Amino acid sequence: MKNKPSLGFVGVGRMGANMARRLKDRGFAVAAVFDSRPEVARALASELGARAPAALAEVTASADTVLTVVSDDRAMRAIFAPRGDSLLRGARGRAFINCATVTPSVHVEIERLARRAGARTLEACMASSIAQARQGTLYLMCGGARTTFATLLPVLKALSPAPRYIGPAGRAAQVKALVNMVMNINTAGLAEGLALGSALGLDLDLLREVFAQTGAASRVLETDGADMQNREHACWFSATHAAKDSGIALALGRRARLTLPLAAATAHQYARMTRAGLGELDKSGIAELTFRGRGGRGLPRVR
Amino acid sequence: MKNKPSLGFVGVGRMGANMARRLKDRGFAVAAVFDSRPEVARALASELGARAPAALAEVTASADTVLTVVSDDRAMRAIFAPRGDSLLRGARGRAFINCATVTPSVHVEIERLARRAGARTLEACMASSIAQARQGTLYLMCGGARTTFATLLPVLKALSPAPRYIGPAGRAAQVKALVNMVMNINTAGLAEGLALGSALGLDLDLLREVFAQTGAASRVLETDGADMQNREHACWFSATHAAKDSGIALALGRRARLTLPLAAATAHQYARMTRAGLGELDKSGIAELTFRGRGGRGLPRVR
Repeated sequence: MKNKPSLGFVGVGRMGANMARRLKDRGFAVAAVFDSRPEVARALASELGARAPAALAEVTASADTVLTVVSDDRAMRAIFAPRGDSLLRGARGRAFINCATVTPSVHVEIERLARRAGARTLEACMASSIAQARQGTLYLMCGGARTTFATLLPVLKALSPAPRYIGPAGRAAQVKALVNMVMNINTAGLAEGLALGSALGLDLDLLREVFAQTGAASRVLETDGADMQNREHACWFSATHAAKDSGIALALGRRARLTLPLAAATAHQYARMTRAGLGELDKSGIAELTFRGRGGRGLPRVR
Repeated sequence: MKNKPSLGFVGVGRMGANMARRLKDRGFAVAAVFDSRPEVARALASELGARAPAALAEVTASADTVLTVVSDDRAMRAIFAPRGDSLLRGARGRAFINCATVTPSVHVEIERLARRAGARTLEACMASSIAQARQGTLYLMCGGARTTFATLLPVLKALSPAPRYIGPAGRAAQVKALVNMVMNINTAGLAEGLALGSALGLDLDLLREVFAQTGAASRVLETDGADMQNREHACWFSATHAAKDSGIALALGRRARLTLPLAAATAHQYARMTRAGLGELDKSGIAELTFRGRGGRGLPRVR
């Protein structure tokens, strides 16, 4: 491995593309990018002077370290398939940094497959959004072998001021699932509070100001409160992702035989959004379900 | 009215008593205190050199301004009863500052009764706890006539660095109900997140630290997170109060025909606590419902 490993990217949507840009800015060679939408991969490849191969195995062949930012469990299993075109073909000596929020046991499964192929994996779960990806200020929670974490620190530090080692494979994904579960609950609750304030005819600027000074204060009040009020739901973190992440946490809860009524109610709300065709709104769009007379009507068209 | 009005107090539990102490420290004469538990009133009266009359009308007779900090709608209506022993007897020229969290329309009702008796009322809803009452650092949201607010500012400022005028009678109580509704949702959600973390065997110190850095951050994480983890549920704000306040907000929501699933799930959880005999625990005690194997078992005996 050279001083700075050459990098591959799989999954170059909003997050992945900005991470690739950031790493290139920091002097890493981005050798190859891949996306399930080939035109997206080609556009980024041409921007970064990288290749956009048609096969996953070619990404592995071109890079020392491959970052993956795919959408869900199914996509993770597909790119690391034990057979057929896969990142694991010819993966000996390679390292994979997996950033998607997926079921924790999937990370364990893929670490095992990768080990068999002579490769190492690290989960690097992100608790931040697109702007932070571009600026290298992500909050990264890492799971896997501690030695793998240490080896990959130069890449991780270009993305995050203080990458955090959580524990063996699956542990960081558990923490991430809990972060998003609690964040989604707070978001859904805030949407109810503001909707009721609006129905009562209260001044919502005043109400948010009071919330911020009291026990109702939260990070999502800062990030999503005004957006809920003003119906600005351009996507940072989609409702569909929120539904998926709350679902991961709920599944962990079921296996642990816990009763989690708030998490369940929240997952139900985000699932309602998705069914209502509002899944591509930002998570703040949950206010479309709670404010009287909204329901997504009259919003600017969603991409 | 003298330069500093002489004060009466009705309802001198944890909050009321500390507000009385604070006002005495700031040079106000506390003339009379009253509580539904006469021994509680007598103890505070002897501490403050005040009287502890047996009749509400005597509190009104001894004071220019009476602060009330009672427990619920029923108690508010009882102390301001239009007939019988009541704060309204001989109330001409008096002012009442009502601090309980009650149904907003009760404030409107009582303002009307008081006006008929020649008195003024102001609701002063508190979004802080016992320590802040003692230190005069309450967050006060005030509702009523603006002139009444202005007249009572010297008293209010001894309790709060910046008393906030919200609007006419009932408005501050609406905002307060919303604050507590959202706070209770965040509390119930946090209790689920920590319980699931514990069931997964995660280090809860680490988990709270990650929550604090991410979208899961909230004021209740700061005030209640460690208490949930360590089962320290000495009462600041009881589960019974939380159940009542969530109920007030839900009733407002029903009248506004809104669907508030998170608020409903939270009210249900706090009602479960009360039914399980855990109502006198602090609101953080909701973690007794979510952590595996707790259910209040093995806690130090509740007063």
